[in-house]
Amino acid sequence: MKSISDYSTMVEEAIIEKDYASKTPESLYGPVAYGLQKGGKRIRPVLLLMAAEAFGKNPVECLDPAVGIEMFHNFTLLHDDVMDCSDMRRGRPTVHKKWDGNTAILSGDTMLTLAAQLMMNVDDSRLRCVLDVFNSMSVAVYEGQRLDMDFETRDEVSVEEYLDMIEKKTSALLGASARIGAIAAGASEKDCGLIYEYGVKLGLAFQIQDDYLDMFGDPATFGKPIGGDVLNGKKAFMLVSMLERGGSDADALREAMKMPPSELKVNTVRSIYEHAGMPELCSRTIGEYSRKSLKALRSTSLGEEARMPLERLVDKLIDRKK
Amino acid sequence: MKSISDYSTMVEEAIIEKDYASKTPESLYGPVAYGLQKGGKRIRPVLLLMAAEAFGKNPVECLDPAVGIEMFHNFTLLHDDVMDCSDMRRGRPTVHKKWDGNTAILSGDTMLTLAAQLMMNVDDSRLRCVLDVFNSMSVAVYEGQRLDMDFETRDEVSVEEYLDMIEKKTSALLGASARIGAIAAGASEKDCGLIYEYGVKLGLAFQIQDDYLDMFGDPATFGKPIGGDVLNGKKAFMLVSMLERGGSDADALREAMKMPPSELKVNTVRSIYEHAGMPELCSRTIGEYSRKSLKALRSTSLGEEARMPLERLVDKLIDRKK
Repeated sequence: MKSISDYSTMVEEAIIEKDYASKTPESLYGPVAYGLQKGGKRIRPVLLLMAAEAFGKNPVECLDPAVGIEMFHNFTLLHDDVMDCSDMRRGRPTVHKKWDGNTAILSGDTMLTLAAQLMMNVDDSRLRCVLDVFNSMSVAVYEGQRLDMDFETRDEVSVEEYLDMIEKKTSALLGASARIGAIAAGASEKDCGLIYEYGVKLGLAFQIQDDYLDMFGDPATFGKPIGGDVLNGKKAFMLVSMLERGGSDADALREAMKMPPSELKVNTVRSIYEHAGMPELCSRTIGEYSRKSLKALRSTSLGEEARMPLERLVDKLIDRKK
Repeated sequence: MKSISDYSTMVEEAIIEKDYASKTPESLYGPVAYGLQKGGKRIRPVLLLMAAEAFGKNPVECLDPAVGIEMFHNFTLLHDDVMDCSDMRRGRPTVHKKWDGNTAILSGDTMLTLAAQLMMNVDDSRLRCVLDVFNSMSVAVYEGQRLDMDFETRDEVSVEEYLDMIEKKTSALLGASARIGAIAAGASEKDCGLIYEYGVKLGLAFQIQDDYLDMFGDPATFGKPIGGDVLNGKKAFMLVSMLERGGSDADALREAMKMPPSELKVNTVRSIYEHAGMPELCSRTIGEYSRKSLKALRSTSLGEEARMPLERLVDKLIDRKK
């Protein structure tokens, strides 16, 4: 049985082989290659390859769609970093910081089309289906990003609205990764639906873990500055959960959020979260979504052995530190 | 025989029917609908429909790809206007001016994926071919835009480099529009290649006309401020032609281009262009490309009657005032 790192090595090598750095104009493709460099977790392409192999396809035949899904993910990072004015990602300057905003926009656009091209390397009989999933997922991601931006200027956002937003912005991509792998392998429609559900629920657990790490992660391993969500006024999981719950902790949080951006603000908000038991709520919620993810996976026609890498991915993602 | 305005009315109605303005979140789709509003020339979708009908397909069956190609064009405008800091387009504020840069980026991304979805409404047997043309054209457009940006900071750009750049940035899209219509209609590979050539050469004539109008157009009808290329340091046709030719007019032009952006600068450059016979050079070059475009068209297997709307489009585009 392949380990997670076996799959990610396959992805890494496939990306290197594409050699985007040598394409011209270098001013367009250099940032594409930089965005794709080692450092990301490669979760999405790994998920695609794992799902393909679980349903009986040689994952080597799915490397192009796998690189395509990683390309899509990195396209969204280039544009999100411009929109969020984020200067650091994975411990390195972002494209708009290293080059400029226009470069991040245009090389990002290029990555979206390159992703669509890579996604087309599937059998003719599965092409329309794969692209339908890819395009619908893309639109969901844009809608999620838009909602995330709109939430920043709203006073209150319900937990339900927050979950709808992250399902679109983050989870749809994990769901689509797994689904495209399954489609490429010729899985039944029912299995494709269940594996999508597995990916979506995994994605929800993943995003809540991300929100938790943004506040309680180790700055040395997280790759981004700690407290970014609080400093950028993002309506992340702990914030919306506390405000919806109400009470004196929520009042204190509301006051703290009025502070100007500073380390003090981040530390104040962190103390309030700790006092209100937010780390425990995160951990409980992550556990719930992980169980739902595994339940969907176990409802597929896959046998225990075929399922195993996908089960281990769930454990790995919720134990991560970055 | 349908007139050009019959085709553009079909496009207009198809866009209205899509009703993007009513989709949610409105903050994402409102700018999409705004970008697509009446005011554009609709040349690209008209070309797609004309090519489809010329090769025997009912154009009504190609309305989705036609709207898709217009959607793609408008996606590039949203992003180009951010990159060029252009505030006006078609006599109206641009999306990044009316909303903001982030909105133009994200709604632009959405338009690219919506375009790809619309492009898929063709027969299964032609899907891969249509998407290959669409994606290759998209990459060419990004490369062209990148070269255009890179040229701004270079002292000298040859006419050959300039023509390569506009072939990618502008002409590839016109070529692809015609080609996709022909593919959808089941035209032979040879005819698809020739109709692409027709569109590319038409696009070159079109872009040189655009460069001419940017300097010599009527502000009342052009839709954009006159002299934008000069003010933005764009290496447009007349500039690169004069600098390559050299001599005293070129020296005067080089001096004038050092002036700070102002109406005086635009007027000075215009006088130099007039003195050097640039309007005549534009007109001659546009004529040459129009003839090449018509030659490719007349080399297809199309009869005279089928060709007629496509021939008239050439005349119409090179006589335009906006």
